[in-house]
Order: sequence, then C-alpha cells, then structure tokens
Amino acid sequence: MIIDRLYEEVLKKGPICVGIDTRIEYIPNDILNDETTIEEKIFKFNKRIIDETHDLVACYKVQIACYEAFGIDGLKAYSKTLKYIKEKGNIVIGDIKRGDISSTAKMYAKAHFEGDFEVDFITVNPYMGYDAISPYCEYLEKGNKGLFVLAKTSNESSKDFQELEVDDEPLYMKVSKEIEKWGEKYVGKNGFSLIGSVVGCTNPKEIVDISNTCKNTFFLIPGYGAQGGKGKGLSALFKNNMCGVVNSSRGIITSYNPREAVLEMKEDILKWLR
Amino acid sequence: MIIDRLYEEVLKKGPICVGIDTRIEYIPNDILNDETTIEEKIFKFNKRIIDETHDLVACYKVQIACYEAFGIDGLKAYSKTLKYIKEKGNIVIGDIKRGDISSTAKMYAKAHFEGDFEVDFITVNPYMGYDAISPYCEYLEKGNKGLFVLAKTSNESSKDFQELEVDDEPLYMKVSKEIEKWGEKYVGKNGFSLIGSVVGCTNPKEIVDISNTCKNTFFLIPGYGAQGGKGKGLSALFKNNMCGVVNSSRGIITSYNPREAVLEMKEDILKWLR
Repeated sequence: MIIDRLYEEVLKKGPICVGIDTRIEYIPNDILNDETTIEEKIFKFNKRIIDETHDLVACYKVQIACYEAFGIDGLKAYSKTLKYIKEKGNIVIGDIKRGDISSTAKMYAKAHFEGDFEVDFITVNPYMGYDAISPYCEYLEKGNKGLFVLAKTSNESSKDFQELEVDDEPLYMKVSKEIEKWGEKYVGKNGFSLIGSVVGCTNPKEIVDISNTCKNTFFLIPGYGAQGGKGKGLSALFKNNMCGVVNSSRGIITSYNPREAVLEMKEDILKWLR
Repeated sequence: MIIDRLYEEVLKKGPICVGIDTRIEYIPNDILNDETTIEEKIFKFNKRIIDETHDLVACYKVQIACYEAFGIDGLKAYSKTLKYIKEKGNIVIGDIKRGDISSTAKMYAKAHFEGDFEVDFITVNPYMGYDAISPYCEYLEKGNKGLFVLAKTSNESSKDFQELEVDDEPLYMKVSKEIEKWGEKYVGKNGFSLIGSVVGCTNPKEIVDISNTCKNTFFLIPGYGAQGGKGKGLSALFKNNMCGVVNSSRGIITSYNPREAVLEMKEDILKWLR
C-alpha cells in the first residue's frame, strides 16, 4: 500500500516533504534568462531542486495553484514535474485541495489519479462531507493511491470555522474523527490508513491531541519554517511513532543550497527525539 | 459592478444558469466520430449548447473538474469554452471550488481572474476561513470580478459538517453570516455584494432562512432538476426579489433541444411567482 511505502520512506530518510511551490520570483536569473518557454523555465528550476534532494526526502508535495496561475503552460510544467518525481522513484502529493460532490469528485479522481496529472496522494477539502471523499474510494481499494483531508490548517483564520465548538469539541476534532473513521477500511500493515489528515504544525498541541485520538491517521504537516512551525514542537508528536511528514517549501526551494536546507530541517526535527 | 450586471440579466431573462459540465457520454455521435482531438470535440459540443441558449440565460457555470479529467487537452477545451461565452457577451462562473491560504489563493486568483482561465465569478470553499477569501479582494475592489462561497451544498452528506450545531445554529448559517459580512464592502447599486453564497435548492427552507438573514447576499443555487430541486420550492425565495440564479446542467445539456429545456425550466420557476 502506498501509505506503507510512505511510512517506510519516513523511517529511512526522516519525515521530510519538500513543497515544490515554484514562483517566478524564486527562479534564478541563469534559468530565467534562458530563451525558452515559461513551462521549460519552471521545469528546469524544479528539476534542479529534485536532483539535489530526492535521496533525502520522504516525498514531494506540489502545489497546483502555482502552476494554474500560468494557465495551460503552467499546467504542462506541473505535469512534467510530477512525471520527473515519479521517474526518480519518489512519492508525490498533489496539493490540489479539491472538494466536490460525487459525480464531480469522480472527475477530479480521474484527473489526479490517472493521466497528465497523476500523483500518489491528493489533498481534499472536507466541507461537503463524505460525498466529497467516497468517489476516490475505488482508487483506494487498489491500495496505490491515498488522500490527505484538511482537518486543521496552519493559517491564522483557520479559527474562523475549524475552531468553532461543536458538542464540546472544536470542529477540526470532529472532522479529524470522521477522517479516521473514513479510513478504517484502508489501514495498511504499519497501522496507517490511506486517508490521512492535513494538520498544520503552527500549534503543536492540536496535532498531538488529534494524533492521540486518531491512531490510524497519518499526517501531512504544513506550516514548518516560513510559516512559523519548528522542529521542537513536533517532538511530542513523533516521540512514539513517526506518524507524519512535515512539509517545507520556501525554506528549501529558495535556498542557495536546497540539499543543505533539507539536512538542516531534518536535524532540527530529529535532534529533539534523541 | 459585475454583480449588478448579473442581477440585471436575471431580471431581463429569468434566473437561469446553465452548467456546461460536459462529459464524454453526453456528446452525440456526430461530434464524437469527428476526426478531431478531444479538445475540439468537447468544445464543439459546448459551442452548440451556447449558440442555442445564450440569449435565454442569465449566465453560464462551467465545472472545471469535467475538463481537468482530460488533462492538458481538457483544460484547453475549458479555456476555449470560457472565451466563447465571453465572446457571446455572457457572464461566466468558473465552478472551481478552490480554497487555500493567502499566498496560494493569490495564485488561484491570478489563474482564474486573468489569462487562459479568466472568468467573471469563481466558486470558493470557506473551510480555511477569511484567509481563503481575502486574496481575491484586490480583484473585487475593481468591481469586475466576484465570488460565490460554499455555504450549504445540495449533496446528501452536506449534513456531515454543514448542519452541525454551533452556538444554537447550524454551521452553514454561521458561514452564511460570515459571507454576508465579508461582502459588506462590495455591495453594488442593486443591493447585492460581489461575495455571494452557494446554497443548494434541494431544501428550499434553508435558502429562505439564509436569505432572510443575509439581505445583501446573491445566491448561486445548484441542485435543480437532476439533483431533485424544483421551481415550486424556490417561489418563497424569489417572491420578494430575484436574489439568485438557479443552475441546471444535465437537464439542459443532455437534452435533445437545450433551448426548449431552458424555456421549460424558466417556466417551472416563474409560474409560481405570478
């Protein structure tokens, strides 16, 4: 199962996910001044990052918005980047945060689990309830695809709705429990299910609470580095089990030396566990 | 302001939005057997619908998932369809239900309010709170772009979270009130704001409740026809003011005579208001 493979990558290499969220202003002049298309420039930048880091990371996450912003050409670069990550043998998460009902979500499943935009995992928004999850299940049955569903995001205004009290617990806990329940049928040999949760690491207490309640849930943890999350805060989560991957984007891909930046991030997380 | 134009279209033509959610199985053989690309086939089908209905409808809604499912080629057809609707002088809603934080939402804004995928309105998911709305505001300031934010969706499992009780009211009411508040700064001359709500018409009571509370909110109302919504249920909403557009997709675009299907839908809604 793909979630077993991801977990094993984490045990082997550390819980590092690199976010390939490329923006024009990140691309150095030597690439930017090339006489090529925008598609080629973006891909060349991404390829350099992947070449330098692929043996150090558990997976990559690619934020589709950065590519959609350049229309068709941008999406060609997105597709090429995904294929290149696969070629290197790495796991890739499409950070697409789609959320729609049955028949539409089926189209999203076809879009992102097959064809030009095929990835191993996608991120999904739970606001529309289980109807926005179930259409992906036929892919989960086969074991080679998985989901990360938004539970508690790392942004300031996540409190607007996610922290509202519902039956004496915050909405994000309710959502987290549903995610755990939806994933029951898809638990792999290492105890984690194909339906994981997205929980930001800007508030480490929340993620530990969720993890204590949802034992089969594997976490995709954004918010490290530029967004304020730190390795120390994650020690309480990881001390029993490496139950997630921590994503950093800007901090790695805008670094002069992405390889060094990954190694530093790994050390910042792992030193608290020794 | 674009919301004033949409409202005036509704007054002139009736509250009809046609959903161009094209699937391969909808395309008749005369187009399907053409020796052209999938992009051309999808566009040709869409063009036929638009040509037959554009003078009768207040706007179109195009569900991007149906196009994403065909990868780059599908998205070329999406782009071409949007441009054709604009050429005809009609308003178009990109049904993309994106929802992401500030810097990422900015990229989605660039993607869908400029360039290949430019539309007049997009649909947005509120789960991440105001951070997922504010990045679009620089476009709203100019008055020519708008949002429809998911409040109460038309699917069965919308109850999973949207109906949970928060401070003695359902979550969807809380969200609706926030949408009304977010839109305060963008109210046009007809009293409606550039930040509208998506509320399904499968439960007419809910939408009347929301409308009574949120006086400046204009509604995008899916769920008519194939999903079970009926014109009669909408009479209580529309009797004071035509405060929304009702979307039908399958019922119109799979009809042998889309023009006739639009006229029938209009009659089904308007007869209860006479």
